[in-house]
Amino acid sequence: MKKEDLKIEDIGEFGFIRSIMNKCHFSSEKLIKGIGDDCAVIGPYEGKVFLITTDLLLESVHFILEKILPEHLGEKAAAVNLSDIAAMGGNALHLFLSIAIPRSMSLETIHLIYRGIKTVCRRYKVNILGGDTSSSSEKLMINVTVIGEAPENEVLYRSGAKPGDAIYLSGTIGNSAAGLKLIKEELFAPDNLTSFLINAHNRPVPLLKIGRIIACSRLASAMIDLSDGLFSDLSHICEGSRVGARLIHNSLPLSEELKALSEINNFDPYQFALSGGEDYRLLITIPQKNIESFQKLFKNQKPCPVYHVGKITKELGIKMIRADGKEEQLKDTGFTHFGRR
Amino acid sequence: MKKEDLKIEDIGEFGFIRSIMNKCHFSSEKLIKGIGDDCAVIGPYEGKVFLITTDLLLESVHFILEKILPEHLGEKAAAVNLSDIAAMGGNALHLFLSIAIPRSMSLETIHLIYRGIKTVCRRYKVNILGGDTSSSSEKLMINVTVIGEAPENEVLYRSGAKPGDAIYLSGTIGNSAAGLKLIKEELFAPDNLTSFLINAHNRPVPLLKIGRIIACSRLASAMIDLSDGLFSDLSHICEGSRVGARLIHNSLPLSEELKALSEINNFDPYQFALSGGEDYRLLITIPQKNIESFQKLFKNQKPCPVYHVGKITKELGIKMIRADGKEEQLKDTGFTHFGRR
Repeated sequence: MKKEDLKIEDIGEFGFIRSIMNKCHFSSEKLIKGIGDDCAVIGPYEGKVFLITTDLLLESVHFILEKILPEHLGEKAAAVNLSDIAAMGGNALHLFLSIAIPRSMSLETIHLIYRGIKTVCRRYKVNILGGDTSSSSEKLMINVTVIGEAPENEVLYRSGAKPGDAIYLSGTIGNSAAGLKLIKEELFAPDNLTSFLINAHNRPVPLLKIGRIIACSRLASAMIDLSDGLFSDLSHICEGSRVGARLIHNSLPLSEELKALSEINNFDPYQFALSGGEDYRLLITIPQKNIESFQKLFKNQKPCPVYHVGKITKELGIKMIRADGKEEQLKDTGFTHFGRR
Repeated sequence: MKKEDLKIEDIGEFGFIRSIMNKCHFSSEKLIKGIGDDCAVIGPYEGKVFLITTDLLLESVHFILEKILPEHLGEKAAAVNLSDIAAMGGNALHLFLSIAIPRSMSLETIHLIYRGIKTVCRRYKVNILGGDTSSSSEKLMINVTVIGEAPENEVLYRSGAKPGDAIYLSGTIGNSAAGLKLIKEELFAPDNLTSFLINAHNRPVPLLKIGRIIACSRLASAMIDLSDGLFSDLSHICEGSRVGARLIHNSLPLSEELKALSEINNFDPYQFALSGGEDYRLLITIPQKNIESFQKLFKNQKPCPVYHVGKITKELGIKMIRADGKEEQLKDTGFTHFGRR
């Protein structure tokens, strides 16, 4: 293939990001972390650092306009960015919104999208401070940038995991992927399951409070939010920390709703748990010596919001330990915008 | 018309922005300015404030992909955001880039866009710290967010102009609009004119240095960059400061190239100067008592980079004073994304 014919899909989204990451820094003053984590980190200023993240939501790529209420779409656009702030252990402060609006879209629909954004901003005391508005020739496009802050010694990166650390998840996983299948009508279920799982996909909750509790405790070594899927996001931790991981198959937390859906539709729910994106749970690594204290952090909360699911290893790669003790090397099957799958 | 049938074009872009501006602030801590100026302003932190701006560039709305080199498109996406930082008197620090890429676009083209962005970032020592990448179903979309900083007592807002202040422009205007007409082949000219004017449109220069000199001098009362056009951006100053303005027709600075183009094509170049957008010059208001000192700031620069073009008035509205002394009330004819024109 000629060089001028190459497309992003030929090198993959992460390959592309790596290809543009070099020579991005032209000043090192007050710069702590650039591309390559959930947020960029700058500072310190008065003992705190700023966390900055930006996420793009495109119609037909990230959402199907007819399948989500405009208000929920607004909520989601804000929530997925706040989740990146949560993943670094920060508080969210300010939000900026760029929106390209199809000319055919009614003012009422647009105001409902804004109402959703404002609902989430009000809940987490985040200011909407600016943005840009444009007409779009066809599709709706929403870009959100969020600025957060954290005490400088409490920020959690992808790069801090060490062999022996325990891996925790902050909630059940795979619900969002199942919700998307239901939205696309590729699976079917009774109404109560459908509404729970579709809600998991359309209305993710940014775990700012749990993220702060964990960061503040200084017991964790690394943290990330699950946007691409457990395998893919754990891979980011492993790459960032130059380690591997073992997951214990039986310990992956599944909701009763996902289990019920898998029985009705006869599929393996663990596949959704492992590869399904957009759960926006936190994945946390905890050094062995801190495990007891970490468990105590949540001792008064029933059910406990954190699940022990595996271990960081010196050996690279991610393996799954089955109930029968067999080990399986996992391969990437997560979502990618530019993949050939 | 029923409420549910209303579109943005029925209330206009600025009407729409006003309609979503209320209830955007949920915390006033360290918040200086939200929506309504070139940048949001937060702080102070260690005596400085942060300036944040975001701008969206959409194919077929803001640029025609076949009519601009990918590298120049990248330069422009960065430059128009840096211009907003310049307009507040700040230094640019960090840039975040979200890009939605059509699947058909070659990797080479995308890398050229990034090269353009990096060229501008290198020139002004701005770090590229993050962003988001997605495939797009059809059109290219680029959203840039820039964070800058300024000493807290040197920031210039749209709201500081007072009756009697002199109005200055930092350069000739109307070139970019003429360049756009040449790009669209609605006007024709010899090659030397064409390349100058198309360059003015495709490769705007963010006036960060002049902006800092002016802000640092503390002689100005207000500042804005010309993105929508002289009339439209002066209106923003007038609305923000609750004043009016008079422009002196003969004093509007036109380039020799624009004058020559207007003679060849037989049009009024002042119309381009007044209504044409994207010149990215600075418009500055200077209290009478500071005019002499302000002129001295640039006394060693030939030609002087600032032009005196009018005066702020107590009487609202913008008037043009013709050479024969006649006054004409001006009306908005600037570019709008959602207008019915």
